[in-house]
Amino acid sequence: MILHIFKIGGEVVDNPEVLEEFCVHMEKIHGQKILVHGGGKAATALSEKLGVPARMVNGRRITDEETLKVVVMTYAGWINKSLTALLQSKGMDAVGLSGADGNLIRAHKRTGSDIDYGFAGDIDSVNSEFLQQLLQTGKLPVVAPITHNRRGVLLNTNADTIASEIACALAASYDVRLIYLFGKAGVLRNIEDPGSLIPRIKSDEVETLHQEGIISDGMLPKLTNAVRAVERGVKGVILADVQSLGQLAAGKTAGTEIIR
Amino acid sequence: MILHIFKIGGEVVDNPEVLEEFCVHMEKIHGQKILVHGGGKAATALSEKLGVPARMVNGRRITDEETLKVVVMTYAGWINKSLTALLQSKGMDAVGLSGADGNLIRAHKRTGSDIDYGFAGDIDSVNSEFLQQLLQTGKLPVVAPITHNRRGVLLNTNADTIASEIACALAASYDVRLIYLFGKAGVLRNIEDPGSLIPRIKSDEVETLHQEGIISDGMLPKLTNAVRAVERGVKGVILADVQSLGQLAAGKTAGTEIIR
Repeated sequence: MILHIFKIGGEVVDNPEVLEEFCVHMEKIHGQKILVHGGGKAATALSEKLGVPARMVNGRRITDEETLKVVVMTYAGWINKSLTALLQSKGMDAVGLSGADGNLIRAHKRTGSDIDYGFAGDIDSVNSEFLQQLLQTGKLPVVAPITHNRRGVLLNTNADTIASEIACALAASYDVRLIYLFGKAGVLRNIEDPGSLIPRIKSDEVETLHQEGIISDGMLPKLTNAVRAVERGVKGVILADVQSLGQLAAGKTAGTEIIR
Repeated sequence: MILHIFKIGGEVVDNPEVLEEFCVHMEKIHGQKILVHGGGKAATALSEKLGVPARMVNGRRITDEETLKVVVMTYAGWINKSLTALLQSKGMDAVGLSGADGNLIRAHKRTGSDIDYGFAGDIDSVNSEFLQQLLQTGKLPVVAPITHNRRGVLLNTNADTIASEIACALAASYDVRLIYLFGKAGVLRNIEDPGSLIPRIKSDEVETLHQEGIISDGMLPKLTNAVRAVERGVKGVILADVQSLGQLAAGKTAGTEIIR
C-alpha cells in the first residue's frame, strides 16, 4: 500500500494561492496520505501583537511558557483547523491532530545542552497504530508540530522532524514516500539555473555533494533527515516545490528524490 | 453499551483544582465517554490583549473574523490540546477534535434574524460514525465548540448545544447519559438551600416547575435542551456540579436528572 506523507511550511501555509494549488495537486495523488504542517509567520505575528518577545539562540526559538501558548494556539489551533476545514471543503476527509491527540507523538524536553530551550520537544515515539486506524477508515491525518510528554505538558517540535519520524514509524506497514515541499524546485547543481535540477540522489552520495558545495549548509539538515529516513525503510524522500507537485500527480518524477 | 457525555464550561476549565477533581471522578465512571468543553474566560482575555473588542447583542457574542480567529485559537487550540494532554497524563486516551475534524459537526451560519451574528454556526449534522470508530478503539473524544460549514469556513457554536446534538446522534447506538456540569448542585426548590435539590424531573414537569418559578429564566435554556434530548432518545440528562460527580462515579445518583 502506498502512503504519501507531505510536509508543508510557511511557503505554502502563509500563501492562500499556493495553498490552493497544493490542495488541487494533493487530491490527485493516489493512495493514502498524511499532511504535516509547520507554522509559518503566524506565530511570530501573534507573539508580536501580544508583546511576547521571540527569543532565538543559535537559530532556534526558545519556547518559554507564553511562547508555548502562542505556538499551540497558532499551529494546533488556527492553522491546523483552517487547513482541515479547507481540505474537507475539497472532499478530503481530514482530521487535524497534535501529538497529544491519541498519544500520537510522545516527546521529552530537550536536554543535554548548556542552553535551556524551554518547551521544545525531542521525539520519543510515534503511535503508528492510531495513524493506521485513521488511514484504514479513509481519513487524512493533518498533523501540527506540537507534541506532548504524556505527563500533561505540551511541547513545540520541528515539523520536518515530525514528518520524517512519522514516515519511519509507518515504513514497516506502507511503501512510504515523504515529500518535503519548500521554496525550491529541489537540489540544483547550480543555484542560479533551474535546469540544473538533480532528479535523484543516492543516500551515500549526499556527503560528496555537500563536500563539492552543491548541497549548501542551509540545506544539509533536510538532506540528513532524508538520508536517515531512507536508511530506516522509507522508499524515497522528495524535495520539491508546490509547482512541481503537479508532475507527481501526473505520475511523473518531480523535484529531487533521495533514495537508498 | 453505556456512553457518558460530559459537558464542562468555564467553572471547570478556568480552575485547575476543579479540573483536576473532574478528571479524577470522570476516570472512575465506567463505560465509554465523550467530553465537550466550552471556552471559559480565555477567549475574552485574549481578545482584550489583542485589542479585539467583544461585541455582544442580546447576550450573544458577535463573531467577526478577528473574533473567530481568537475563539478557534483558544477553544480548538490551547484549551482543547491542554485538556487532551492532561487526560493523556492520567491514562485516558483522549483525542481532541473540532467539528471540522473528520467532518464531525457540520453547521451553517446563523440566519433568519435581523442581527448578523457573523461566524456563529447552527448545527446541521453530527458524524456519529466517526465518533463510534473512535469509541470502539478505546478513544475518548474531546470536542471543542468549533464547527465548520464544509465549504471551508469555521464557525463558533454553543458547547451546550454541541453536547446535546452529539448525545442525540448517538442515542440509537448507545444508552446515552448527558451530564452538564455547572456551578450548581442541580435544580434546587429553594436556591438558598442546597438540601432542596430535586433529584429527578420528568420532561413533562419542566414547564410547571418554570411557571412555579423553581426553574429560573437563566436555567431554562439548559432544561429545554435536556427535555429535547430525552425526547430524542437520550436516557437521561444530569445537571450537577463537579463535586457531586464523585457520587455518580460511586454508582449513586447525583445532581438533578431529567428523564422522559
